[in-house]
This record gives sequence, structure tokens and C-alpha cells, in this order.
Amino acid sequence: MTIEFAEPFLASAVSTFSTMLGCKLIPGEPFIKGDLPTEHEVTGVIGLSGKAKGAVALSLCREAALSASAAMLGQRPSDVNHDVTDAVGELTNMIAGGAKARLEHLSLSASLPTVIVGQGHVMEFPYQAAPVCIPFECPWGQVIVEVGLIEQQEG
Amino acid sequence: MTIEFAEPFLASAVSTFSTMLGCKLIPGEPFIKGDLPTEHEVTGVIGLSGKAKGAVALSLCREAALSASAAMLGQRPSDVNHDVTDAVGELTNMIAGGAKARLEHLSLSASLPTVIVGQGHVMEFPYQAAPVCIPFECPWGQVIVEVGLIEQQEG
Repeated sequence: MTIEFAEPFLASAVSTFSTMLGCKLIPGEPFIKGDLPTEHEVTGVIGLSGKAKGAVALSLCREAALSASAAMLGQRPSDVNHDVTDAVGELTNMIAGGAKARLEHLSLSASLPTVIVGQGHVMEFPYQAAPVCIPFECPWGQVIVEVGLIEQQEG
Repeated sequence: MTIEFAEPFLASAVSTFSTMLGCKLIPGEPFIKGDLPTEHEVTGVIGLSGKAKGAVALSLCREAALSASAAMLGQRPSDVNHDVTDAVGELTNMIAGGAKARLEHLSLSASLPTVIVGQGHVMEFPYQAAPVCIPFECPWGQVIVEVGLIEQQEG
């Protein structure tokens, strides 16, 4: 995967947070993830298949996960509960959907989101996928989108 | 999703561990996951799409992850490193591939595996997917397969 693939996911994340949450995401510089694991607290992950195969993950710090859920649900959950994992799953779904539409030539299908909760968990992609990490800042703290895609051979 | 969907994943996990690792998995009774979160240490997850949408996750305790990697690589990694996450990703891929072949009528495509590492992490599926949890025992400790699938409407 090359860094160019990051752009549709970056644009989709900015647009999803703005539309759904009224939250302005300020993107940092995307980088190839390499051996630097990034620690997360709440991560939504969706698999992608089609003319490319891969996955996209949306990771939020605890405060960002709770505030995003509050913006979606109209009330702030007291803890990282099912309401929060459903909200993060739905946001991941929308980011994947928006990027898919921007990558029409790859005819991507998205799977269902799964959401991982656990302080300090890290996420690894297959080494062939050379995932790109896109860091964002927002008023709620850190938000990260990671995406790894491998184009499939025709035939 | 109904409990019947568990069978192809159960059979594929038993067959993958036997063929790839020479390890006998003893399946327990599959159950609908409900509100009981299961804590994991190393989890491989793959998205599925086609006439059904969902995901399958393979979770191993630390000892099972290290021993499975040792069986695949011919030497035991000193810690849960990239070799371990690659091995768990590949096992998840094979379990998904075997189940896909047993569920041919659903024309499933699999995404790339991502692997989550972090003591005590939990994984949530969307509530509509009512994931099934299949616990296994093996000489290395606990192995769990979780699968959530929603059949898509034709059209």
C-alpha cells in the first residue's frame, strides 16, 4: 500500500466527524506505520475486500469515545459500554463507506465492524499491507485511523 | 445469526489447528455471546462480506499464541512479537478460508486479518449480529473463536 491510499480515508473521517458529531478533526501527516505500535483504548475495525483486500481501523482515546457517543446519542454514557461500542462501530462503518465511495474503481465491500476495548491494546496488520496511520487532533483528544490495503491481481 | 452458523467455523478451526500445528482442539458448547464479555490477550479478526456480512475472530491466551507460533515457525518466539501476530493472522485467515468453503452458498469474501494484542481486551460485535462464541480447550490453554454473521437481503 502507498500513502496515496490514505487520502480517501482521511477525507471520509473528517467528513463523518463533522456531519455526524459536529466535531472538527484536524489531520496530521499520514505515515507508514512500520514498527511503531500505537496504543489504543477503543478501536473499531472493518474488513474490506474486492479488487483490493484490507482493513480500516478507527481508534479513539477514552474521552474521544465517550464524547463522540454523547454527540451521537444525545447523552453521555457513564462508561465505555455497549452504547459506546455501537457508536464507534457505526462511525467506523461510515468512514469505511465514505472511503469506499471515493475508491469506486476498487469495488470494495465492507464487512461488519467489530469493536475492541482494552487500555493499551495495539493492532497489527499483515506486513505485506504496510498500513498507513493517520493521526488526528480534535477537542476530545486523539483520534487515529489506520488503513492497510493490498491490491489484488486480476483474474 | 443462529447457532447453526457456528458449525463450519468450529470444524475449520479444529482442522486448521490439526493440520497446521499438530494440535488437537477440543470444542466446548458454542453459545450466543450476549452480555458476557470474554477477555483476550491475542486476537486475529477477519471481516467477511458477500450474501452475508460479518466477522470472525480467533483469540488465544498468551501461552497458546506462543506455542502455536512455535509450531508454525519451528522456534518459539521470546515474546508476543511480529512473528506471533503474523502467525495468529495466518491461522485466522485459514479458519475463515475453511469456513468460507463450507458456506459456499453465501459467496463470502474475506478481508485481510488484523491482530490485536493487549491483556484483557474484549471484542464487541454489532448487536444485530448476535455473535456466537465457540470455546476450545487444547494443551496450550484456551482458544476461542467468535463469529457474527448477518444474512443480506437479495437485491
